[in-house]
Amino acid sequence: MRTRDLDALVVTSLPNILYLTNFTGSAAIVVVTMERIEFITDFRYVTGLSEARGTGAACPGLELITVEGSYDAELAARIAAKPGRVGFEASHLTVSRHDWLVKTLAAAGGQARELSPTEGIIERERVRKDAYELDTLREAARRLSGVARSVFDGVRSGRSEREVALAIDWQIRLAGFERSAFDTIVASGPNSALPHAHPGERILTEGDLVVLDFGGVYDSYCVDLTRTISIGAASARAREVHAAVLAAHDEAIAAAGPSASRFAIDAAARDALARLGFADAFGHGTGHGLGIEVHEDPRITRRRADVDTADETVWPGMVFTIEPGAYLPGWGGVRIEDDVLITNNGVEVLTDVTTDLLEL
Amino acid sequence: MRTRDLDALVVTSLPNILYLTNFTGSAAIVVVTMERIEFITDFRYVTGLSEARGTGAACPGLELITVEGSYDAELAARIAAKPGRVGFEASHLTVSRHDWLVKTLAAAGGQARELSPTEGIIERERVRKDAYELDTLREAARRLSGVARSVFDGVRSGRSEREVALAIDWQIRLAGFERSAFDTIVASGPNSALPHAHPGERILTEGDLVVLDFGGVYDSYCVDLTRTISIGAASARAREVHAAVLAAHDEAIAAAGPSASRFAIDAAARDALARLGFADAFGHGTGHGLGIEVHEDPRITRRRADVDTADETVWPGMVFTIEPGAYLPGWGGVRIEDDVLITNNGVEVLTDVTTDLLEL
Repeated sequence: MRTRDLDALVVTSLPNILYLTNFTGSAAIVVVTMERIEFITDFRYVTGLSEARGTGAACPGLELITVEGSYDAELAARIAAKPGRVGFEASHLTVSRHDWLVKTLAAAGGQARELSPTEGIIERERVRKDAYELDTLREAARRLSGVARSVFDGVRSGRSEREVALAIDWQIRLAGFERSAFDTIVASGPNSALPHAHPGERILTEGDLVVLDFGGVYDSYCVDLTRTISIGAASARAREVHAAVLAAHDEAIAAAGPSASRFAIDAAARDALARLGFADAFGHGTGHGLGIEVHEDPRITRRRADVDTADETVWPGMVFTIEPGAYLPGWGGVRIEDDVLITNNGVEVLTDVTTDLLEL
Repeated sequence: MRTRDLDALVVTSLPNILYLTNFTGSAAIVVVTMERIEFITDFRYVTGLSEARGTGAACPGLELITVEGSYDAELAARIAAKPGRVGFEASHLTVSRHDWLVKTLAAAGGQARELSPTEGIIERERVRKDAYELDTLREAARRLSGVARSVFDGVRSGRSEREVALAIDWQIRLAGFERSAFDTIVASGPNSALPHAHPGERILTEGDLVVLDFGGVYDSYCVDLTRTISIGAASARAREVHAAVLAAHDEAIAAAGPSASRFAIDAAARDALARLGFADAFGHGTGHGLGIEVHEDPRITRRRADVDTADETVWPGMVFTIEPGAYLPGWGGVRIEDDVLITNNGVEVLTDVTTDLLEL
């Protein structure tokens, strides 16, 4: 805040608020000043927050403000009472709320107040995980790997995609996760050509490839894993596609490390697929950061000339997925995904499940 | 759009996009013009959308645009090519994205382009459910009521909150819901005084009140239900609090109807609790709309002098929750919630589970 000449920062992103304060509810605004954290929330959460005081989950320096009417009216009153420059998160405040705040502050009179847009102040802190977060993510990845191994048994001819998805979600909860990190994907046969298919009534059938993509939230942190298996013996074509995606996966991980560009990691996966004849079959990015959100920075993607003006290296402490795929409409597809941590001298793969093409 | 003198409307809210097009993915922008719906999405969803063509799930007049780089760059190019006035959803576009679009459009030159802020155009359509939506919500409420009846059996002394929550989520999925509509609440004993408690390791114990609050998403529509039960015989105090909340629940439903003010419905619940000695124990709103989102308009709340300038009646076709509660910190709490539909001549309660205080 000193670097940016800010006297206060209004934080409206709930993941950023969770990062700063451990609050896991669905409504709050935080105003960070040099002295304290003003925490605006409503009746529903006050008792819980009061009970957290004095425990390890408590946030030091937090001043609790209970709002009865409008959150933004309370926020405007707080801002109006503050001297100096107040920043807000321009990526986490809508045009409506911003315009209302500006109008309300102007009507309140007093010194002319300008709200300064900021970008990614808290997100930049979040991207490099600390020791506590790494312990949490390692444990989460260990548990999710166990989920994968335990569900393979139940993936067999005759079961529907929906049944398998339900079994996966059940195992995720049994393994101690708060919830699934996103809607579990079980995409079989031709559906496996749809990177974001919804599990449906289709029955798994001998010869199908089945993409299993699932994640869990453990102590507020997200992990994510994909394996593609074959129902019964895999065809030569299925083996070929799987081998190409596995090469892309392995080469992307080999390209990752503390001085690698995020675009170069993506290119490693893409180049492998192109070399093996699947240049046009991989339309999404190679990976995404993991943390309080299941999709956060860094994005392991193609460099886009229109927006990516500078190269960007990944840093030690970053955790992200590597998940190349190859999708052949009408036929099927393969995706293989692991979670990796950039260390001071390389890369640590957090998930631990065989990448061989299993024939179940 | 004619009324508002708009030639195009940029829709960035995913629930609004789902309402317009049946798209259930996680990334898309829609531009609605008088002639068609321009649908911008990426590779991950294209095959699925193409396969929906010609089925009942297809959206008529949809022009599919596959974006390879930045969604907003594609959007800016589309807007720049359009004559006339272009609106955007001011409550669903961040200051960052808006400022980038304005800057990019200015740099593109040509005629000076203004983006016009709009509020709630699609939301106002969504608030009054059509026959298809009502069928879906009725079926969803019927299934959720079945879930409630089936889980009561498993709520007993010796089980943990977490175990009961897991059993509820399992039953929700078995009943055909896509997913739980929110994190299931199982709040026992003193935890029941926390309206938004997370289910934890606390063991249900003889004499506890237990708040069970859960919802499901069925064919993209959300329903929501709460019952509070007693583990073993309820104390006189528990009976008194439960009776007061039930009176508030019943009186709020009696106050609902096609010409009722949403503030009056809330006041009916609040007045009942005050009359019975629990004026300070009910800090949240009486209800919220249900539909594609689990919290949408109408909000059944206290009138807030700072923002609610006009009275607002509910309309036939609106579906919302009635969920008063009473929370006594350190002791416990009660909440009772049903889902109601405003009809042409009254109110239809969609959920169907006894409101008696069960002693399990």
